[in-house]
Amino acid sequence: MTDREIIIAVIGTRQPSPEESKLAEEVGRELAKNGVALICGGLGGVMEDACRGAYAEGGLTIGVIPGDDRKSANRYVRIPISTGIGYARNVIIVKSAQAIIAVGGGYGTLTEIGYALDSKKPVIGLKTWKFSRNNRIDKSIIRAHNAKEAVSKTLKLVKRK
Amino acid sequence: MTDREIIIAVIGTRQPSPEESKLAEEVGRELAKNGVALICGGLGGVMEDACRGAYAEGGLTIGVIPGDDRKSANRYVRIPISTGIGYARNVIIVKSAQAIIAVGGGYGTLTEIGYALDSKKPVIGLKTWKFSRNNRIDKSIIRAHNAKEAVSKTLKLVKRK
Amino acid sequence: MTDREIIIAVIGTRQPSPEESKLAEEVGRELAKNGVALICGGLGGVMEDACRGAYAEGGLTIGVIPGDDRKSANRYVRIPISTGIGYARNVIIVKSAQAIIAVGGGYGTLTEIGYALDSKKPVIGLKTWKFSRNNRIDKSIIRAHNAKEAVSKTLKLVKRK
Amino acid sequence: MTDREIIIAVIGTRQPSPEESKLAEEVGRELAKNGVALICGGLGGVMEDACRGAYAEGGLTIGVIPGDDRKSANRYVRIPISTGIGYARNVIIVKSAQAIIAVGGGYGTLTEIGYALDSKKPVIGLKTWKFSRNNRIDKSIIRAHNAKEAVSKTLKLVKRK
Repeated sequence: MTDREIIIAVIGTRQPSPEESKLAEEVGRELAKNGVALICGGLGGVMEDACRGAYAEGGLTIGVIPGDDRKSANRYVRIPISTGIGYARNVIIVKSAQAIIAVGGGYGTLTEIGYALDSKKPVIGLKTWKFSRNNRIDKSIIRAHNAKEAVSKTLKLVKRK
Repeated sequence: MTDREIIIAVIGTRQPSPEESKLAEEVGRELAKNGVALICGGLGGVMEDACRGAYAEGGLTIGVIPGDDRKSANRYVRIPISTGIGYARNVIIVKSAQAIIAVGGGYGTLTEIGYALDSKKPVIGLKTWKFSRNNRIDKSIIRAHNAKEAVSKTLKLVKRK
Repeated sequence: MTDREIIIAVIGTRQPSPEESKLAEEVGRELAKNGVALICGGLGGVMEDACRGAYAEGGLTIGVIPGDDRKSANRYVRIPISTGIGYARNVIIVKSAQAIIAVGGGYGTLTEIGYALDSKKPVIGLKTWKFSRNNRIDKSIIRAHNAKEAVSKTLKLVKRK
Repeated sequence: MTDREIIIAVIGTRQPSPEESKLAEEVGRELAKNGVALICGGLGGVMEDACRGAYAEGGLTIGVIPGDDRKSANRYVRIPISTGIGYARNVIIVKSAQAIIAVGGGYGTLTEIGYALDSKKPVIGLKTWKFSRNNRIDKSIIRAHNAKEAVSKTLKLVKRK
């Protein structure tokens, strides 16, 4: 069991801004450089950007896709996990990861952040959602300002365990 | 198919404040008075409060529970759906409902709101999450100030379809 | 909790023979006459036949559909549960039922029988699969020869608990 | 996409006979020798035996576990996918694989065989279930008599595509 992979999730929207795309790709690169496997939803946008970055550095990329057909995974996914359970697969991305890095994000990202915080898994955020209730801002997401900082904060939390 | 049930979800935390409990119970009552079936996660807190209200008015209550054992549903659930898929069941509550009423809320509620907005289902909020991205507040949740207003706004949206 | 529904599943293929259709409809009728709710996969074939029978007797019919859209449920489903998780929903039909009646059957039925036997839930079979391993025939399915016998055997097992 | 993994599932019971254990381990070895990734349910019995074989040959092992905690995967799993969806995860093992090798088997195996045949995925059987309906034996499972034959038949089918 000495060589079980450390797995980190990168989550985010299918329609990223150019800045978010660049951030996601850098996050992917940094994870691969650190010898860490990347898990994501396996489709386009932030998911593909992060996989492209990891792939360029020879990293292991896992794509947990909603559908049945491994061909729907983006081309940088080395291990497609075809769930066939639709967006219920979001919870599997979160549970399989030891920490989550959120880059930008849409409503799907919100479900993944909710699942991660509910199971007390670290969430590191790059330009992602902020939320509040009863006028109190939730501070559970650890904020980062660039890809390197995000990955370095993530790895500190994961390796501490 | 004339008598297919209209189904509305009530979502919220297992640890509500007394005010949230009261709101949830009133929402349940109002739904039942309007002849609408209530679906929820079937456990305690807001879920039980809403079921108790609906039950008191003779309403139909459906509880989509995470585990295998129907006995884990709260006592006011008339139809327990035992999923055995854990919190992945959140997506089923959302998809089975024609609209969602959120009362207060924890991180699980955040996943359900994310799923609902992602599938363009109406979400009516009572003292629930607010969220923003890039300093823009998301306005997708329709806010209500009391249980009657929440149910009346919900039913208008559902019947319009 | 005195009025929590007893829920029995009827499973079977989407392409039944005329004889299987007739059996499924009679099973639905008998369940409804006995005041028991019927749960099934909500689509056509045996599922629709059983729902039609239950519906004709004023029974409660629950359809756990694979997709997102309640309109894909057959017209005799009073409570559609839209899962969006595809055929992973088979396990929910089984877990939500207190016993399972299999009428004929395809490969999907085989998954449901497997899930039921694995969780030690009674399976009553009408012209359904037989299976063996290492030349030993598995005798876990309780066989019945007509709809009345199937329902009466089922109810005895459920009420004994 | 030139280096996307070929993924083959090995399924079977948690309580194998010594002969089944040996078969499963050999199947794992053969898969790894052929450069193919192995996916399984990640727990004990046939799953662990197959992983041990693959691991000994330096193969890639993926374990799709029912629970939340990657520590519940057997020690030869290099990539644990923690689903948290219980035995509904069986469908994911099947859908993620390009073919399925069944070694012996319990009721869980029956669900996986059902899912595989329903989605027209090749199933190669070693001492696994036989089943029939209306006195006709189902011949969809391709039978093999030893581990080498099972893997060689599997790879022919997968590479033909």
